[in-house]
Parts: sequence; C-alpha cells; structure tokens
Amino acid sequence: MLNIENTIDRIRELIENGDNEQLRTELETYHSADLADIFQELKPEERLACITNINEELASDVIEYLPPQLQVEILGDIDENLASRLVSKLPHDEAADVLGNMEEDETEAFLENLPKKFSSDVRELLTYNEDTAGGIMNPLVLTVYDNMTVKEALDTIRIKAEKDNMELYYAYVVDKSSHLVGVLSLRTLMTTPVDLNVSDIMSKDIVKVLVDDYQGHIADIFMKYQFNALPVVDLYNHLKGIVTWDDVQYIVEEETTDEIFTSSGIVTDIGGDDDDILTAGLLHSIKARTPWLFITLLGEFVAVTITSRYDKTFTALPVIAAFMPLLAGLGGNIGTQSITLMVRGMSTGQITLSSGWKYIGRESLTGLSIGAIFGFLVMAVTWGWKGNVELGLIVGVAMALNMTIATMIGTLTPLLLKKMNIDPAVASGPVIATTIDVIGLAVYLTLVTWYLISF
Amino acid sequence: MLNIENTIDRIRELIENGDNEQLRTELETYHSADLADIFQELKPEERLACITNINEELASDVIEYLPPQLQVEILGDIDENLASRLVSKLPHDEAADVLGNMEEDETEAFLENLPKKFSSDVRELLTYNEDTAGGIMNPLVLTVYDNMTVKEALDTIRIKAEKDNMELYYAYVVDKSSHLVGVLSLRTLMTTPVDLNVSDIMSKDIVKVLVDDYQGHIADIFMKYQFNALPVVDLYNHLKGIVTWDDVQYIVEEETTDEIFTSSGIVTDIGGDDDDILTAGLLHSIKARTPWLFITLLGEFVAVTITSRYDKTFTALPVIAAFMPLLAGLGGNIGTQSITLMVRGMSTGQITLSSGWKYIGRESLTGLSIGAIFGFLVMAVTWGWKGNVELGLIVGVAMALNMTIATMIGTLTPLLLKKMNIDPAVASGPVIATTIDVIGLAVYLTLVTWYLISF
Repeated sequence: MLNIENTIDRIRELIENGDNEQLRTELETYHSADLADIFQELKPEERLACITNINEELASDVIEYLPPQLQVEILGDIDENLASRLVSKLPHDEAADVLGNMEEDETEAFLENLPKKFSSDVRELLTYNEDTAGGIMNPLVLTVYDNMTVKEALDTIRIKAEKDNMELYYAYVVDKSSHLVGVLSLRTLMTTPVDLNVSDIMSKDIVKVLVDDYQGHIADIFMKYQFNALPVVDLYNHLKGIVTWDDVQYIVEEETTDEIFTSSGIVTDIGGDDDDILTAGLLHSIKARTPWLFITLLGEFVAVTITSRYDKTFTALPVIAAFMPLLAGLGGNIGTQSITLMVRGMSTGQITLSSGWKYIGRESLTGLSIGAIFGFLVMAVTWGWKGNVELGLIVGVAMALNMTIATMIGTLTPLLLKKMNIDPAVASGPVIATTIDVIGLAVYLTLVTWYLISF
Repeated sequence: MLNIENTIDRIRELIENGDNEQLRTELETYHSADLADIFQELKPEERLACITNINEELASDVIEYLPPQLQVEILGDIDENLASRLVSKLPHDEAADVLGNMEEDETEAFLENLPKKFSSDVRELLTYNEDTAGGIMNPLVLTVYDNMTVKEALDTIRIKAEKDNMELYYAYVVDKSSHLVGVLSLRTLMTTPVDLNVSDIMSKDIVKVLVDDYQGHIADIFMKYQFNALPVVDLYNHLKGIVTWDDVQYIVEEETTDEIFTSSGIVTDIGGDDDDILTAGLLHSIKARTPWLFITLLGEFVAVTITSRYDKTFTALPVIAAFMPLLAGLGGNIGTQSITLMVRGMSTGQITLSSGWKYIGRESLTGLSIGAIFGFLVMAVTWGWKGNVELGLIVGVAMALNMTIATMIGTLTPLLLKKMNIDPAVASGPVIATTIDVIGLAVYLTLVTWYLISF
C-alpha cells in the first residue's frame, strides 16, 4: 500500500505547475485501485485534470474502482465523447451499475452514444433489480457447445478470452438453444486428452442461480460451496450471465452493514444504499433513524409509568432513584452482549434454530455468574459508601437478578424472532434494551417496596 | 439448497435399519457442503455411521467443510488409520488447521502417521501464527520457471495441475533459486503464441504478501485489488504459498465478527476463536465479557454520584426520577446509531480520517432535528399526562439537548480514537453509552434544579 498523503502532495504540485507530461508519467506508475484511492482525496477540478491526462484504458479501470457518486460526478464533468468511450470500456455489469446511478435522462443520453450491441446489453441489465442476480451478473460468459471436442473448446476459449478481455473461471457448456447443460473447470479442459468430447467430461451437477434470486441467497451459496463463479439462468434454463466471487465480496459487505445497522435500530430498507445514510439528505437520515427510536420512546414511557408509581418511595428514600441508571446500564450491556453473540452466530451459520436453544441455559449461567460477581461488588460499594447494609443488599440482589434476566432475554428473543421468520437483528437494538430497562426497573422497585413494607 | 429436516429423518431411518448399502448411496448423492450441514445436525454416533460409510474422497471433502470442533471430534472417534488417510487427502493448509486444533500429543501422533513429505509440509505450516499469511496459505503453488517458453509452461501446468489436484488461478514465475519474479494469468498463457518466452510476457508488478503479514491486512489487499489469489513470500522473496479468495471470505467473516463483538463490549483477544465465546468454558466467557462491564460499572457509579446529589429534588418532586430512564434510553440509542454509522463507515473505507470530520456537523444537525421532534413529543405527552407544563418543558428540552449531545459524542469519539490509533469499535459499546448516560443525567438534573430555584 502507498503513502497516500505524500503522493497527493506530489500530484497537486504537478497539476499546479501544469506539467501534463510529467503528471501523466507519475499517475501511470500506480495501480488503478491506488489511483482510485488517490482520486477520492483530490478536489473535483484536480480529479478532472488527472482523469483526462491518463490513457483511456487506465482511466476506465480507475472509474471501475471509484464509489458510485464519484463515478457519476466525473462522467458528468468530462467531455461527453470521452465519457462514452470510458463507459464502453467498462465490463457490462459495471457499466450498467454506473448508468443506473445517473438521472434517467443522463442514462438515456449515454445509452444512445454507446456502441449498439454494448448499449442493448446494458439496457437489458438495467431492467433487473440491482439486488438480484440479474443486477449483479456479467452477461459476457465463456461458453462452449456440448458437441465440441476438447480441442475445439480450447480453441474457442483462446479466441473469446482474447477478444472480450474475459476472466477465465469455468467454461459453461450450452446446447444450440443456449440452455445451460454442463460446466467444465479449466483444469479439466487443460488436463484432458484433446480429442475427447466436451459432453463426456463436463459436470452435469450444476449449482446455478436464477436472474431474480436475491443477493443474500447468492452470497450464501458462494460461502457454502466456495465456487469462484456461479452461472445465472432464467426460468427456461437459458444462460444469462455469471456472478463472480468479487461481486460476492461486495454483497457480503453490504449484507453485513445491513445486519450491523439493523442491530443498532437504523432502518435500512428505505431506498438507496446503506452507505447513503450518512451522506444523503437530512430527511433520509431522519427517516432511517426515527422508527426504532419511536418504539424506544413508547417502551420507555412504560418505564416512566412504572417508576411514577413509586413517588412515595422516592420521597421517603430518594437515594433509591440514584441507583436506577446503574441497574439499567449494566443490564442493558450484558443483554446486548448475549444478543450480539446469538445474532452473529445465526448469521455466520454457527447457531441454527435446532442447536440454538441449548445456549439459553449456558447464557443464563453466565448471566447468573457475572450477575453474582457484580451484585456482590455493588452491594459492598453501596454499603461502604452509604453505610446502609439493607440498601446495599437490595441494589446487589437487584443487580444479580437484572443481569441474569437480561442474558436470558438476550438469548431467547433472537431465537424466537428467527422461529417467527423475523430478522433476529431487529431484536438486538432498541426493543430488547428497552424491555430489559423496564423489567430491570420493575424488579428493583419491587424489591425496594417489599423491603420498605417488611421493615 | 436442501430441505435439511426431511433429509435427516431419512438418513436416521437408514442408520437405524442398518442398511449400509442404501445409506451410502443416499449420502453420496449430496454435495460435500450439504453433507457437512447434515452432519452438524446428527448425533455423534450417527455422524460416525455416516462418515465411515461413504467413500474416502467424499469423507475428506466433508471434513473440510465442518467447523473445527467437529473435525477434531470425528477424527478422534474413527479408526486411526482411516483418520490419517482422510487428513492426508486434505489440502495442506486445511490439514494444518485441523491438526493445529488438536491437543499437542494427538497432533504429533497424526504427523507421524502421515506420508513423510505431507507431514513435513504441514509441520512447517504449523510453525506460523494462524492469523498470518503463513498460517492461512496453501504451500502448493503452481510455478513455472522464468526461462521456459509458453509451451513448456503450459505443459508443466497440465502435469502439475493433474497430479496435485491444484486450483488454477495464476501461474507464478520463479527463478532457479525459487525467488518470485513474475506472475502470469492463465488467460495470457492460453492466448499467447506458444514459442514466446515466459519472462517476456509475465507481469513483474507483483502484489504479494509476507508470511507474517496479519490476516486483516491480507483481506484489505484482496478487497482493494480484487485478485483471485495472492502469492506469499518470505523476507528473501522466496515463494512460500498462495492465499486464495475463499480463505479471504473466512478472514472477512472473522474480522467482521471481531468488529461486532468489540462494539458490544466483548473482549475478543483472550485466545481461541471468537466463535468459542458461546461454546467454551464458563470462565472463558466471563473473561471475555466482564472487562467492559466493569468499566461500565465505574461509569455508572459516576452517574449514581451525580444523581445522589439531587436527593432533595427527588423528595420535593419525585416525578423527576421517573423520567430518568426515558432520557438515558433515547440518548443511548441515538448515540449508538451515530457510533455504528461511523465505525462501520471506517471499517468499509467509506469514512477516512481526513473525510470523517465533515460528518460531525451533519450528525449534530440530525441529532438536533430528531431531538427537537422527540423533545416536542415528550413535552406534549408529559404535559397532557402530568398536567404540568413546566415539567413537560424541562423533560422536552432535556430530551432535545440529550439527543443532540449523544450524536455529537457518538460521531466524534470514533474519530478521536482512530486518530489515537485505537480501534474505534471499542468506542461503540459500553464506554460511550455510559458517557452519554452520565452527561444526559447531568443536563437533565441541572435543568431541573435551575427550574426549582427560578420558580
């Protein structure tokens, strides 16, 4: 990796000096992924100076590595013929992603400027939902026919791979009507006698996805079977494209972000990418964040209602109020730990619905043990500090109970939600924290009341 | 994907009937990844019946897909010669992982039973830290020499790929002392005239990692450059192995789990995998979970100390106490949202240290807006409910202030931690939640006091 700050200073200097020759030489020493990192730190006019100065192959590669909003910005700012040339050098799926992020009239203008075949391929890709196999796949697939020999197949691959700049993973075998009938690894092709028939050596057990399969499903299949690429077919088993492992990296990253955001009570399905929540308009941000906060508000009003009933307790023994945040805070934290362990375990596949229930006992025991330790600590401190052994005892016992109950709720709720086919990640944030708050306060104040009545 | 419950019932029935022939036929219809899923749901003795019944190639494949504790369990339970044969059929890196998870004397026993070359390769792999390139890489690399022609290189690849069951990604070019000097894509090899020299067509700009590079670094490089495989070299540039994209899937999953656990205040670097926290002994679990809870305890005692000073307020106006959980709960939630957005943005690379500061204003505005909405709601409800406009006003204003401050703390802290080279994920959980609790209470109680004095 490169020291980006020094590099940027040097590039800025070259731009200021207007030394285009040397700027070009300097820029072209970097890998396109590094240039994309550099471009992100530059000002818009600096970026333009750079992109128009490097060769078009490299410029197109750099655009592929940039985040969506920058892709659109740069292509809108440069000369429209250059922009069309750069887009036409992108892989089809990437070109569709870029054009899909533009305003509709801009997209149309680009499509009209692009080479005919490319433009119609991209147009087809744009009809698919961007979160499905159709929206992710590359329609350029390395195919051979089932009636070829290995030699013919190898020759075909050589020509196609050279012409279309294709990545080689597997060769997919189709019949004359483009139905997917088999798959061949390059290893098999390269190590098999050249006069055998493709149909005799191909594997017919094909793991494939449908054009409208959702991306989460596709990622699950990749993670499970560990393929480099999967073929995408329509309902008639016509081969439409391939999804490759690098597409899946992005899917997994997006799905993980989704899981993490959902766990924090951020709503992710209000349109736009998850990344947009920080950068999109204020209204978008408010829409993403208020729903679960509102649920929390309702929950906490229950807590207020319960607590309100103890007016007399607070009047008689006001110190009781002071310990409420302590109990709520620790109960919430240990409960969140349990939820996190369960939700993550479910999403990595370590915890299944059938194996999950055994963790309840285990987690309760952990909660009880830690609760006992912390209950004892709190009791000791409270007693020493307030000089009141009964108060210490009440707070300590409430703490132990509270932490145990919190782990139980934190373990059980994700399992119950999963059982009801609700995404367990929604459990992890606000709702459970509030529930634990309410129950914790109720336990504590009940203990207090019971003590005040008894003594 | 398969309907696992029906399948398991059918397999159980076949095991009970002792119909080994049919059990074998049934099991061998599944992909090894599916069998691994099935095995995880079976009881230990059922698993044994299955693994000893299928052919050894398949059995070894299934073991590769199983989670570590099951791998060790099964290999310990079956006949020791069969176990050795199954291990010797695993890829070297996987064999090293499996043996590395056993007790030391078991590992030694296996190593002595394995074929000599295999055993010494695995022994070398076991010397590397399992979180570094050396611990992840496969030492079997497809290499060609720099003085070969394309034809010689292709012939070499054909033979090696067949013999060693190797995945084909790139061919790495070494000189006669095994120094890595170039890389060739198979596409280049297959589409270049066969009489050219390898050294003339190979790429010399090689992105590579060192044997002791940590896995997070390796994953970053994969995500950035989008390679299928990366060569691993030692300090003398000797080629030692390759890391492939499917290894990276696991690294990314592990690093994400780490990030998520750390954010919830679970300590992940106390030895063992993160997955172990739920399954390991009670003591391990307590060690992972108490440190941040203890910090929370200290923080919350600060809250108790502050709140204790308002004894007289609670005596005079006990309803004040009832609203404390409401304020703490909502402040904590909106603060957690901000932290999550920042920490996740940093870990996906969307937010950098240089670009991060601009989000503070944006987040504060979001906090202020949502705070104003919720403050108004709470004021209205409190006023209507308690019939006390001043109380409503105090709670409402405290709510708005609290939510604004919480977003600011939640945005700023991860940036400051990053600036100080501390993992920002540690900010996300307990510490900030407690800080927000303390500040929220202080704001609220100050407002209350100011009101009680003024009126």
